[in-house]
Amino acid sequence: MATPESSKPRPPRYELLTLGDELLLGLTANGHLTWIGAQLGRRGVLLQRNVTITDEADAIAEQFRESWAKSDVVITTGGLGPTCDDRTRDVLATALGQKLILDPAIEQTIADRFAKLNRKMTPNNLKQAYRFERGEVLPNANGTAPGLWVEQDGKILIMLPGPPNELQPMFTEQVLPRLARLGLVSEGEAYVQIRSAGVGESMLETKFQPIFDRHPGLGVAFCAHQGQVDCRVSSPDGRYARTALQAIAQECAVLLGDDFMCFGHDSLAKVVADQLRESGRTLAVAESCTGGLLANNFTDICGASKFFQGGIVSYSNDSKMLLLDCPECLLSQHGAVSAECAVAMATGVAEQLGADFGVAITGFAGPTGGCGENPVGTIYLGLHAPGGDWSRKLTYPGPRGTVKQRSVTAAIDWLRRELIRESRKASVQLAN
Amino acid sequence: MATPESSKPRPPRYELLTLGDELLLGLTANGHLTWIGAQLGRRGVLLQRNVTITDEADAIAEQFRESWAKSDVVITTGGLGPTCDDRTRDVLATALGQKLILDPAIEQTIADRFAKLNRKMTPNNLKQAYRFERGEVLPNANGTAPGLWVEQDGKILIMLPGPPNELQPMFTEQVLPRLARLGLVSEGEAYVQIRSAGVGESMLETKFQPIFDRHPGLGVAFCAHQGQVDCRVSSPDGRYARTALQAIAQECAVLLGDDFMCFGHDSLAKVVADQLRESGRTLAVAESCTGGLLANNFTDICGASKFFQGGIVSYSNDSKMLLLDCPECLLSQHGAVSAECAVAMATGVAEQLGADFGVAITGFAGPTGGCGENPVGTIYLGLHAPGGDWSRKLTYPGPRGTVKQRSVTAAIDWLRRELIRESRKASVQLAN
Repeated sequence: MATPESSKPRPPRYELLTLGDELLLGLTANGHLTWIGAQLGRRGVLLQRNVTITDEADAIAEQFRESWAKSDVVITTGGLGPTCDDRTRDVLATALGQKLILDPAIEQTIADRFAKLNRKMTPNNLKQAYRFERGEVLPNANGTAPGLWVEQDGKILIMLPGPPNELQPMFTEQVLPRLARLGLVSEGEAYVQIRSAGVGESMLETKFQPIFDRHPGLGVAFCAHQGQVDCRVSSPDGRYARTALQAIAQECAVLLGDDFMCFGHDSLAKVVADQLRESGRTLAVAESCTGGLLANNFTDICGASKFFQGGIVSYSNDSKMLLLDCPECLLSQHGAVSAECAVAMATGVAEQLGADFGVAITGFAGPTGGCGENPVGTIYLGLHAPGGDWSRKLTYPGPRGTVKQRSVTAAIDWLRRELIRESRKASVQLAN
Repeated sequence: MATPESSKPRPPRYELLTLGDELLLGLTANGHLTWIGAQLGRRGVLLQRNVTITDEADAIAEQFRESWAKSDVVITTGGLGPTCDDRTRDVLATALGQKLILDPAIEQTIADRFAKLNRKMTPNNLKQAYRFERGEVLPNANGTAPGLWVEQDGKILIMLPGPPNELQPMFTEQVLPRLARLGLVSEGEAYVQIRSAGVGESMLETKFQPIFDRHPGLGVAFCAHQGQVDCRVSSPDGRYARTALQAIAQECAVLLGDDFMCFGHDSLAKVVADQLRESGRTLAVAESCTGGLLANNFTDICGASKFFQGGIVSYSNDSKMLLLDCPECLLSQHGAVSAECAVAMATGVAEQLGADFGVAITGFAGPTGGCGENPVGTIYLGLHAPGGDWSRKLTYPGPRGTVKQRSVTAAIDWLRRELIRESRKASVQLAN
């Protein structure tokens, strides 16, 4: 990934310390890195390091001292709970030579919370009412442990509670605005992002280069992930205003044609959901080898019931006949993993559910199954649209999870392109 | 989490360095930590630290020096690719004062791989044919970048390629056996794990304590994750043989009754899949708010088609009537989020698909929706079994993703318990 050039002073160095044996034992994924890293990235900061260590007090103290010495901002997550395992608060106070003092306001908030939930407050909950003597409190609307904010040695320590539903609103509503006021993150989004689908990174770079050549000093970064490539344009030295960046991004988008997915951070399913809502169209899906993942991508979107009629996971031939009206002779002649079956599934589910569009996936996700011309990793997509019915054959290497995810991405992207084609046709008809 | 007591010498210190801006920008989750951490944990090693740093050569060099100085084993992932971003090999060789030498055997393997895939090998691919002058090669059956194994200063450096389908088999087939031969991980599983479902950590601890009191020197650790609690019993000083540990675990399992899920590491869905396969029973699922996640849990299991008839994602009232035969009057009287609807969905999907068991989930996953006595987070489960039809009301706080995941876990656990009850009844009938 390209690093944007900069003529500004050294950017502030951020480190994230994630605490917990459960992370190191692989019992929990380190979601805080993913989420906080992305949030900082959007504000123009590349997190310099993430360190995950055990709950052990000595390990926490040693790591914190090292991180504090070399960073401008240290963020910690976890270890603020009421149990004796939660030593982070004490260990960091000692490391910074500060005392912890009982904050009556936090105590009252915790007591109120217990009263409201009709639960008895135990003495160890009081531990959470302590703050650094020279530090501030980040109120927690969703739990008992408040966050802590400490400015010392010209640096900043931010301690956040572990549960994501407590950490995330605290970070966006309190931490980011404070950091922006101190000039440690940008006020708004630091870049304009162009999301593409179905085109490789080097191809994208080649396409955009003539545009970038006309704009000296432009910051450009490409990020490929899960079959998509994003391009982020920014102005490290401030010579381009946001509107100018948007105009450049717009030029890039036009060049991409249908490979352009969206500006910003929306997921592929979200983009398609917006297209469907805008055109008042509805969708139904049928899937075998992806087993619910396609439907789940759409139902992850809040308000999906407005356009999503439903999905059928037809894992057996019987279910394809019973629920999707796939003819038995089609299944016996072509097999369940075939172009014919994919189309029958797509049309079947759209008809059963009275949806405008039907999308189907059938294939061998592996590691077993597959045969002859359709080895493991062979996927057929089916698309039923007002404008016609089609199938498409794809082959993906990789383990079961990857094959499932990539098939789902390909299916949603195909629907996205068909929706663009439809709306283009509709606007031509309107114009005539 | 309790740390097992030990009278043995200091255990070897393991560190994991995960490299890549894409991790720090939150574009990719740090799956290597989760996977490698779990693998080492099973062999009796608690990874002491995971450090994620940028692709920048200076950052890699500095971090590696620090990690190498304090560790016995350092594992790195990523940065072994053919592009100029992939500097790990050079940086670490310099740090260790070693030369990189072209290994003709690796070169041949890479050339063969390109020939087989009918692709042209470019000069930068040759970069991957270099190994440390005093180091070994870990062949890569699934990609071009081999792993590297270096023993120096009484320590071990293990460099692994980034793609999981290359890293994972390399780790289990080559790295773990080598580490075991050197006595740096246990030969087999270091503990016997008892998995429970539906019971809290402190309750579990209280139940097991009398058993543990009779076994001095036993290592005991509890791990709570995603609504499950595992208990791991081990013998840090070697006084209990594996068979003895298994006997102790068996005692614990008996105490748990139906809260006992399994020994080892199987998922809840896998346990239920085995129960279904064993009893020759089949399953169908219907879900609204979980939108495919329940079906996906089962279809993640290889060979699911043996017992999984299919699933219906009925996101609208129409789809509940059309696909599940939910009566319109039931929906208008009780609403789609109701005990009555949950049972109708479970029986409907089982009948439609001719399955023995039907499981249904309907509810308000949030953040919007909900009303009066059924606020956001209200979930109804429905279960259709040969022995009867039931519903159950649950309430979960938390964001949409958590509500979905916990509802699915609760639904699968309910089915698990019903399958135990059935098989118990069946064996009583056989005995009479």
